[in-house]
This record gives sequence, C-alpha cells and structure tokens, in this order.
Amino acid sequence: MQNLGIYTDLAVEAQEMAIQRTGGEIEGVSVTEERKEYSMVTRIKVLNESAAQKIGKPVGEYVTIESQGLSTNNREIHNSLSGVIAGELERLINFDRLREDSTIFVVGLGNWNATPDALGPRVIHYLMITRHLYKEVPPELRKGLRSVCALSPGVMGLTGVQTAEIIKGVVERVKPEVIIAIDALAARSVSRLGTTIQISNAGIHPGSGLGKKRAGITQKSMGVPVIAMGIPTVVHATTIANDAIDKLFSSSKFAGAERERYNRLDPKYKNQIINEVLQPFFGNLVVTPKGIDELIQDMSRCIAGGINVALHPDITLENLSLYLA
Amino acid sequence: MQNLGIYTDLAVEAQEMAIQRTGGEIEGVSVTEERKEYSMVTRIKVLNESAAQKIGKPVGEYVTIESQGLSTNNREIHNSLSGVIAGELERLINFDRLREDSTIFVVGLGNWNATPDALGPRVIHYLMITRHLYKEVPPELRKGLRSVCALSPGVMGLTGVQTAEIIKGVVERVKPEVIIAIDALAARSVSRLGTTIQISNAGIHPGSGLGKKRAGITQKSMGVPVIAMGIPTVVHATTIANDAIDKLFSSSKFAGAERERYNRLDPKYKNQIINEVLQPFFGNLVVTPKGIDELIQDMSRCIAGGINVALHPDITLENLSLYLA
Amino acid sequence: MQNLGIYTDLAVEAQEMAIQRTGGEIEGVSVTEERKEYSMVTRIKVLNESAAQKIGKPVGEYVTIESQGLSTNNREIHNSLSGVIAGELERLINFDRLREDSTIFVVGLGNWNATPDALGPRVIHYLMITRHLYKEVPPELRKGLRSVCALSPGVMGLTGVQTAEIIKGVVERVKPEVIIAIDALAARSVSRLGTTIQISNAGIHPGSGLGKKRAGITQKSMGVPVIAMGIPTVVHATTIANDAIDKLFSSSKFAGAERERYNRLDPKYKNQIINEVLQPFFGNLVVTPKGIDELIQDMSRCIAGGINVALHPDITLENLSLYLA
Amino acid sequence: MQNLGIYTDLAVEAQEMAIQRTGGEIEGVSVTEERKEYSMVTRIKVLNESAAQKIGKPVGEYVTIESQGLSTNNREIHNSLSGVIAGELERLINFDRLREDSTIFVVGLGNWNATPDALGPRVIHYLMITRHLYKEVPPELRKGLRSVCALSPGVMGLTGVQTAEIIKGVVERVKPEVIIAIDALAARSVSRLGTTIQISNAGIHPGSGLGKKRAGITQKSMGVPVIAMGIPTVVHATTIANDAIDKLFSSSKFAGAERERYNRLDPKYKNQIINEVLQPFFGNLVVTPKGIDELIQDMSRCIAGGINVALHPDITLENLSLYLA
Repeated sequence: MQNLGIYTDLAVEAQEMAIQRTGGEIEGVSVTEERKEYSMVTRIKVLNESAAQKIGKPVGEYVTIESQGLSTNNREIHNSLSGVIAGELERLINFDRLREDSTIFVVGLGNWNATPDALGPRVIHYLMITRHLYKEVPPELRKGLRSVCALSPGVMGLTGVQTAEIIKGVVERVKPEVIIAIDALAARSVSRLGTTIQISNAGIHPGSGLGKKRAGITQKSMGVPVIAMGIPTVVHATTIANDAIDKLFSSSKFAGAERERYNRLDPKYKNQIINEVLQPFFGNLVVTPKGIDELIQDMSRCIAGGINVALHPDITLENLSLYLA
Repeated sequence: MQNLGIYTDLAVEAQEMAIQRTGGEIEGVSVTEERKEYSMVTRIKVLNESAAQKIGKPVGEYVTIESQGLSTNNREIHNSLSGVIAGELERLINFDRLREDSTIFVVGLGNWNATPDALGPRVIHYLMITRHLYKEVPPELRKGLRSVCALSPGVMGLTGVQTAEIIKGVVERVKPEVIIAIDALAARSVSRLGTTIQISNAGIHPGSGLGKKRAGITQKSMGVPVIAMGIPTVVHATTIANDAIDKLFSSSKFAGAERERYNRLDPKYKNQIINEVLQPFFGNLVVTPKGIDELIQDMSRCIAGGINVALHPDITLENLSLYLA
Repeated sequence: MQNLGIYTDLAVEAQEMAIQRTGGEIEGVSVTEERKEYSMVTRIKVLNESAAQKIGKPVGEYVTIESQGLSTNNREIHNSLSGVIAGELERLINFDRLREDSTIFVVGLGNWNATPDALGPRVIHYLMITRHLYKEVPPELRKGLRSVCALSPGVMGLTGVQTAEIIKGVVERVKPEVIIAIDALAARSVSRLGTTIQISNAGIHPGSGLGKKRAGITQKSMGVPVIAMGIPTVVHATTIANDAIDKLFSSSKFAGAERERYNRLDPKYKNQIINEVLQPFFGNLVVTPKGIDELIQDMSRCIAGGINVALHPDITLENLSLYLA
Repeated sequence: MQNLGIYTDLAVEAQEMAIQRTGGEIEGVSVTEERKEYSMVTRIKVLNESAAQKIGKPVGEYVTIESQGLSTNNREIHNSLSGVIAGELERLINFDRLREDSTIFVVGLGNWNATPDALGPRVIHYLMITRHLYKEVPPELRKGLRSVCALSPGVMGLTGVQTAEIIKGVVERVKPEVIIAIDALAARSVSRLGTTIQISNAGIHPGSGLGKKRAGITQKSMGVPVIAMGIPTVVHATTIANDAIDKLFSSSKFAGAERERYNRLDPKYKNQIINEVLQPFFGNLVVTPKGIDELIQDMSRCIAGGINVALHPDITLENLSLYLA
C-alpha cells in the first residue's frame, strides 16, 4: 500500500521506506556507516536519476548524524557533535577548491515566529559573521578567519517573495562561492525529533514538507554549490495517524484476513479517514515535543558551533565557546 | 473498548465520550445550549458525585463557548466573544455577593517558555491590573474599577514549588474574594483547537493533562471560589493515533469480523502499539497548529478583554480597546 | 559654539538648530504647518544643495507628525494618526503615476535583538503582505489590494553585508516601483521620543546616527523612489550631557563672564569632558524610556496601519483592525 | 553641593561619594580589597547606623566584584567569575549553619518585559531547580544537590501586589532557610554597566532606584537571611547630565569664580535645569548600552553559574556547563 500522507525530509527515512516497499536494496543508492564517539554517521549517495525517483530525493550525498545526546543539554556531547558536523561540512564543501578570501553565505530558512520552524534563524544568531570586518582588516591579521555572511529572510507568507528569489538577489551582489542553507525538517518517525542532523549537497526546497511547490535553493538555481543542513523538529500529524494504523495491522492480532483487507485498502480511503480525524487543520497540524522551545536553542548552538569550526581555520573545538554568541 | 491514552480537559468532550460509552444520557448531568451571534454557548452542570465519576469531571458548572471566529483575527468577532465571556464570568462570579472593594486575583498558569502552554501568562499580560492603584486613589475616583491583581507563577519544573502552594501563599496575604485561573487546555478533537473556550466554577488541576498528580486550585484548597478559564491549544499525540484507528474500524470497510475483533482488543495492547509509534516521547508529544504562536497572542487578547469587561464596571465592549495593553 | 556630539535624525530638529546657530531663517528651506485633530503636521522642504548643507539633511521633503498620543495606547488616537500617516504617504508616493499592479517593497531596517532598534522589523510584522497571493488571484478579485512585499534584513553586524546591498539585490529581482524604508531614529530632544513620526522622500542612511558611514538607500542608489519613515526611540547620551551643560550656561545664573567663557570654549574640550563621563561606551550609550519594549509594539501597529491604508485601496480606517496581524 | 538626582544601588559608589563629600574616611565603614585572576573584589562593611546614614546604605556587608570581562562573552573569564561569586555567596550564606535538606529560595526581581530590568528573571531561567525532585529521590541519591526553589514574581505594575508581599506569602509556605534575591541595579557611573557584581547580606528594596517607596525584602521582613545580588544595567539619565556638568566645573577651564558660583548653586536649581532637558520623562529615562539585550543573557548565565556552584556541592566549576539550562 502506498503511503499517501506520509512525508519525510530525511533521505535515511526515504531510503528505509523505499526498501520496505520494494523489499530489497535500491539500485543506484550507496550507503556507508561510521560509528563515532557519541554518534552514528550514515552517508547515503543517490547516484542517478532513476535512484532519485525511487527514493524521492534528488541526486547527491546525504549525511545523517544520529545521536540521542543532541537533544540533551550535555555540552561535552554537543562539542563532539559540532566536531562531526564540521568534518562532514569540510568534506562536502571541499575548501581546497576555494580561495582564501572566498565568501561563504549562510542562509537561515524558516519562520522565526513559529517555534519549531525557527531553527535556521537561530543558527544564524549564534554564527561568527566576518565578511564586513574582513575588508577592513589587514591580510596578516585576518588569517584564520574566512569571510562569512548570513541572512534569515523569513518565509514567503511574511515577505511576499519566494525565498529563493531573495537569496538569488543577494548571491548576485555578494558573489559567495558556497551557500550553506539551514532549515528545520519534518521526519516520519518521532524518534528522529531532536536526534538526527542531515547535511546534504543536494540543495534545499523551502516548504516542501507542506506539499507546496516553491523554487529550490540548489546549485542549479544559485550557480554555486549549496550545502543543506537541518534537524527534524516536527512530524506531520497525518504521519502519526498513518503509522499507528500500519503498526496495528502489522501486529500479530491482525495477522490474517484483516491485514489482507487493510493491504488492499485504497490509500485514498485511509487518507480520507485520517483527514476526518485531523479536520479542519489536516496538513497544518504538527507533532512536536513539549520542550521544543529550549530544544531549538540548544541544537542551534550545536550546529552553529560545527559551522564555525568548519569555516574558520582559527576556530577549533577547544576555543569554540569563545566565539559562540 | 476503554480509551486509555485519550485525554481531554473539556467537559463537553468528556460528556460526549461518556454518552458514546454508555449509549445514552448521563444521569446527574444537565446540558443547555444557547446560540449567540458568533458563537454557541453550552452549559453543562455536573450535579452530583456519581455523575462526576461517570464523566470524569468534578461537580460544578462548565460553560463552553464555541466559535470558529476565535482563531481568526477578526476584531469584530473577538469583541463579540469578549462580551459572551464577560457575561458568563459575571454570572459564575455573581458580583452581587462581593463588596465594591473586594479584590479579584487572576492567575496565569502554564509555562511561558513553551508556546502552546503560554496562554495563561499572555492573558495576564493584557489584563487591566488595578489593586496597587486602588489604595492610592480617592473612593470617588476609583468608582468603576475593581481591585484586580495577578500572578503568572510558572510551572513546577521552573519553580520547584507546586503551583497551588504559591497561589495559596499569595491568597493568604492578599485575601481576594475570587480567584480566576487561566490555563491552556488539551482537547481530544483537533477541531477544538483555537475554537472553544471553557469557563468553569469547578477549579483547576495543573498538569492533569500530563497525567501528573498535582495539588488542585479549587474552592476547597483556596478557601474562596475559583473560576477556571481556558482554551485548548494542543491534542495529545496519543489521542490522534487512537482516534485514527477508531475511525478506521468504525468505517464501512471494516464492518464485520474486524470491528468485532478490534472491539474485543485489550486496550493495553492498542496502547502499546501507539506507544511504539510515539517512542521515545509518548506522553510528551503534542499536536498543535503551525500558527500557534500568533494564535496564542490573538486569543489571549480576546480572553483578557472578556475579563476586563466582566471585572471593571467602567470597561465596556465599546471602550475595551483603550484598556488592552 | 558648534555642537559636536549632538545628533538628530529629525529634519525638524536640524532646522531648529540651524536657526539657533545662524539666528534666522534658512534660505532654501520652506516650512508649513497644519493642525490635525490629534496631531500637528510640519512639512519641511529642503530645496537645494546649499540649504541641505546648512541644515545637514539631503534635499527633499520631510514631514513631521507630532502627537503626544502616539506613545499612549489610545486606539482612537492611533487610528487618527494612521490616517494622517496614510495621507502623507499617498501624497509623497503619488499613486497616480503607479500602475495598478505595481509592487511596493517595504523594508524594516534595524536590529530585532536590540529593543529600541526593532521598530522596522516590528512594523513589517504587522503589515498586510500580498505580493505572493497577488499572482494567484484573478484580476477581478484582487481589485482593492496592491502588490506589497517586505523584508527585514537585519543590521550589518548580523549579516556581514551592507543593508543597502541586500535591498538592492532584492530590488533587482522583484522590481518594485517604490520602496518604503522604516527605521528607528535618534532625536536630539527626549521630548521627541515616542511623540514624533518623520516621513521623507529623501531616502535613508542606515547607521548614520552612530556616525558610521554606510551605503544609503535612496532613489539614486536604488533606481526607484524611496520613502523613509521613522520614529525617534533613543537620544544619544552625549546629547543629553551636552544639552544639560548648554541649558545651565544659558540660564540667568551664569549670565555674565561664565557664559562668555563657555561660548568661547573649544567644542573639542567640552566633548572630551563628556567623553570622560561616558567612558568606556561613549557613542554606544543610548537614553531611552523605561517602557520602550511596549512602546515599540504600540507604535509599530500605528505605523503599519498607516501603510496598510495608504497602499491598499480596500483597507480603510474603519476596517483597518481586520487587517492588522 | 549635594547631589540631588544622582542615584546608585552600589555601596562602593555610595562610599566614594561620601568620601568626596566629607573629604576623608567614613567612620564605621571598613573596606578591604582582594585581587583575583580576572577580577578585583572589594568588601565594604557598614558597621553601624551612623555609618549607614552617612553613605545611604543599610548596615551589612557589600561585596563588589569588578571585571571588564563580565560584559565580554569569554567563557573562561565567566567561569572564573562564577567561581568568585560562588565563594562570596558561600561565605555570606554560611552553609555550616544550614541543615543538609534546608531549602534555599531564589527570587528573580524585575520586569521581564523591559530588557535592562530582566536580569533577575533571566538568572532564574538558567538556575538548577531541585526542590520538587528532592522529595521524590531517596536520600542516598540526592546527596550533592541542595533543595532549591525559585520565583520571578514580576513588578508591582504587572501584579498589583507589592513584590515583598508575594515573596512573604511563598516564604510562609515553603519555609526556606535563606533567600537569594537577584535584581538589575542602577549605577552612578556608566563604567559600572556590565562590569560590576554586588552581593550583599543587607537585603533589597525593589524600585528604590526609581525613588519609589516599597516594602523591602530583608531579614527583618522575611524572617530569614536575605542575600541580594545584582549587576548595574542602567544609569539614570539625570545622573549623566549631573556628572557632565560637575566634570566641566571641576576642569581647569572653570577653575576660578565660575566654580565657586557653581558650588554655591542651589542644588534644586541645577535639578530644575536638568529636569527641563529630560522633560517629559525625567526619572523614567535610563542610559543603557546598545547591546544590552545580549549582555543580559551572558551575565545571567554567569551569575546563575555562581549560584549553582555555591548551592549544590556536586556542581563544580568543571562540570558547571552540564547544569546550565
């Protein structure tokens, strides 16, 4: 049965779902795992268009950093995670191909007025911004700090302009060599909330979790590489309802005729049932942990730390705390 | 089948569930309805302990004001709703039995750091506070304004003290004649989010939506009448999952043996299935509309408006906007 | 004596100071006044470069709306002021020369993290944004609402990019026909705080109050007319100190030799004295009313109201409250 | 000349002013200084009523910790300062006289809606609150954590109740053995803003900086020792004006007759001049650094850290970051 109403921004979940559907490996998708001190790193490469179609994510690499410690307030674990983020960012950006004075443009996507959507703007808040200082400081002094600028444009409902348009306008004037775009994500599984970081070189599509068609922020549209980073902060309520039903029918109590009937059920019918439960909000209801306000603060610092370490040679895991706003 | 995992703060939903369970009227519960311009007012009286047991709500009167317009930003509708709130408050408080200089103590319950839980503190923010001015102004000038004081104590996790203890401590010093306690509520149905106001003379039990046992804020514990007011801002994720499953099995597609088997299912088993979907958060996952941050602001003003009109003879629906912070 | 260390964004104050200095009318500056119900409107025209030099403000028209009621929370007065703002905006923009579907771009300047500087972003928060809806709605339905978009870019310390650069980038893609730029202002006199609105067609220069040289947002730099609007929310601490000293020496107690000696005093010497009092902050100390947080909220709504009425033919002072976020 | 219009919450400034006035040591006031790694600690003891009268501060001990690093975001310095705070707190509280399970009540004074006044509530936000956990945990597990509770009552304008009344009400129910009260302070000198911490066992008087008479929070009124802590975040605008004038007349340029005349000037006359400059706000104008919003966050964490280390034996400077919210 197809999963209408189930959405995820995470390639690692999309791939799991594709395997479940097809019953085996997906051709054109490579997966490697690496265990770190406080986290598990999974690197998924979607190698071609056919594979992209199958798992519903564009061609590119998707790194997933999983850690139960991300949602705690343990600074030792956060420091370790910042280090892992920095390593993956450095690899995906490949600083060797950048000039020493290349500008990096960090974009904080999302709506600062909606707590679970405010991850991007909060990360920007904690970032070390240097581009404006860069030009005023003599070269021998600025060694060790790259030129970094940032913007939190807000969502289309607040600006009236597609976010990609605003970014493109700034890109044309500032001429960065790389864009890093931060966004809050939607996961399928609640166990992903506050425990998973995704970093990808496949760009980002604002509002895609809401089923809205928006211009993407990708290498193709921007003219420079775009690294997307995010953490799931919500699961759509439709997904919760779907999964509860699925789980029940895959349990031993409904093993026979019921499961068969359920598997033959028209997905639209199931969707309509769920729709009735979620009236009048449907797609606009999100499931989020009670402590999301504090969670966003803590995770934003962790991500900003990783970006600071990756971008500025003089910022290290040891002295990081001196640079965090 | 019993509904473990389903919770509601609303008497109107508790009563519906009781009727569904028992298949008919609940003895000892009286219900009357009145249609207003932009709202429907339902007054439920739980008349005795036996009825209280049946619907799971203490003896007392519960007024429900329902309006789709509450969650819009339409000031005309909000003004009308403030008027309805004021009317019900006046009736439940019965000002005739108060002295002219009696103090009313308004308590804003909930956690200002968690958006959907911040309704109480926000209402206090918009309230006309007068007690401190009251004593300094000559009697002929203060005609038309009652003595009102307020406190947003925060939740126990922030204070280390049971909220009822803090309130009681202040009550013993300030000696109000009535307490009005405002809190964000949890509903069973998402259609109640931002559309229903409950006002009750049965007091309030902080944290009861979370299944936590806390000292109540009631006439018995406080020594003066306690009016509780609230608006549902969340549905527990367990409830969504439960209801989606229920709805599916009550649909025509699962009319025969499946429904029977489902109805015979041990509620604990269903709960365990849902628990698996909501791991590792379970009871700490809430379903909330995306726009909850703005919604809380708008609804807080509406409630504060109603309280201002009810408490202060000189504040009317016409001049209300002059007094709202 | 020259007034080093005294700064004002208000043309009306700059003109007063020029008159005081020169002892008479400034050639090339025309001033007219009009009394309204709750406000006084002063229109200053700086007609040529020579006059601009004399009063230290670029050529253009500067409208000042003064009202004690701006800083109150009286909605009737605010509504009236929104009407006056709308009228002046309409005159300065001259809508007759715009096409019906021309886009207007409203920019909220300033730092949302610094309360007295957050006026611009707050006004954007309360604005009716329509450009994204505009294209999806059939022409006969969208009659009555103009295409309005907005951005709060943040200050250079937060973005690393000159604000004018960001605006220019967006202007090149969105191609508005008018820009309206909102900013918190610095006044010379504390009596101006929260009581004066300035609207001008001479553009805006971010950070000029801090003595920092920044690229301007003007018709010349943007290629389309720029209307600047603002309200003073701070007085520089240097100005307070200066004025207190001035006032003392112009009092009758220091009428003779002292005043003469004072008037011959090297302005740099006086500046140095004040500098010592304001060490180590000097230019970074601002004088602001205690209630500035609430004041910003109230005044932002008033300005947003005026802009909404001016831009959208279907929004009037009567139905304005339905459109304010 | 007396200094009407000059106000300071700092004993160290009050003492300096008294010395300046009287031209020598103040009898009954003892002062000792100790240099620490990143700070200078001054301990002033006001030994009797006559001395208290002279310097305008009640009998008791006032510890001043001065450090330029307090207003930076340098975590190493903040950690060191937290250690100094902890040491002074431990000395003033004298834990030896407390039982192991004594409760300590921390009060966050001030108005969370006015940035420079929000220090107290922010400190509470970062504090380790344990009293509610304390009773549920077996004694062998809770070793190392004391029972701490907290409240941020808000200011009288928000509650309608004198803050001391609210605190007293809670004290009577919770029965703490010590109260620690945190408040933002007003200094005389701008160089004190964000660079000085004051800790005192003389209690606190809310609103005294505004010249308002309020009930104090002292050992006498509360029945248990009260430790007051605070950091200056504002200077009254009147003080700035006063000091600029003073400085000018004490400069060599006004050495002769002018200074004499100035010194003979009726203080009321000077006050009236300053009043004219600060119309219509006068006492309600505060001078504050532009970056006060960020400053409050950083300093609140530093103070909360010191309190956490002082109160909980198991929290040390090394593991402190694990306990800060």
